[in-house]
Amino acid sequence: MTYGCIASMKTKPGFRDEVASLLLGAADGLRGAGCDLYLVGLADDDEVTIWVTEVWRSKEHHDASLTRTDARTAIGRAMPMLTGDFTKQELSVAGGLGL
Amino acid sequence: MTYGCIASMKTKPGFRDEVASLLLGAADGLRGAGCDLYLVGLADDDEVTIWVTEVWRSKEHHDASLTRTDARTAIGRAMPMLTGDFTKQELSVAGGLGL
Repeated sequence: MTYGCIASMKTKPGFRDEVASLLLGAADGLRGAGCDLYLVGLADDDEVTIWVTEVWRSKEHHDASLTRTDARTAIGRAMPMLTGDFTKQELSVAGGLGL
Repeated sequence: MTYGCIASMKTKPGFRDEVASLLLGAADGLRGAGCDLYLVGLADDDEVTIWVTEVWRSKEHHDASLTRTDARTAIGRAMPMLTGDFTKQELSVAGGLGL
């Protein structure tokens, strides 16, 4: 089964759209790195939480992607806008519709 | 923006694969009901938690899908295998790769 990950992060007030744009910009290069899904969602019940659901061919592909220059640049730009509140749930993908 | 939802449920011990199969079986009919993504994942850090990430054309499409006969049948079959521990996070989908 392929590797999945559901993560959340909280931004400082007023910065959620900018962080979401950074994440979406970095997503462009992920397909070639082994990513099949990279979904960015904004929590409906507050103004600061972002949820990201990812599916990768393997955990190794995911981990390697974090060393990419574009990923590191995006992370570096986003970090000052984040509070440091993160959650992360690793998954084995059982399947589904739309992958 | 389209409607997203990240939900988790816990199964009674030994029933996770069966519940996941039920969810995946019910997913077949969702495309025509306005669903663009229905991802079923098994938590890597226990044996009982299932995570589902969904993207729908609208919240109304999502809510209407729960009244479908096949969905109600699957829910009815799954419920006795679940503990009643659920989480649900509703989202506005900002975008991403693979949708």
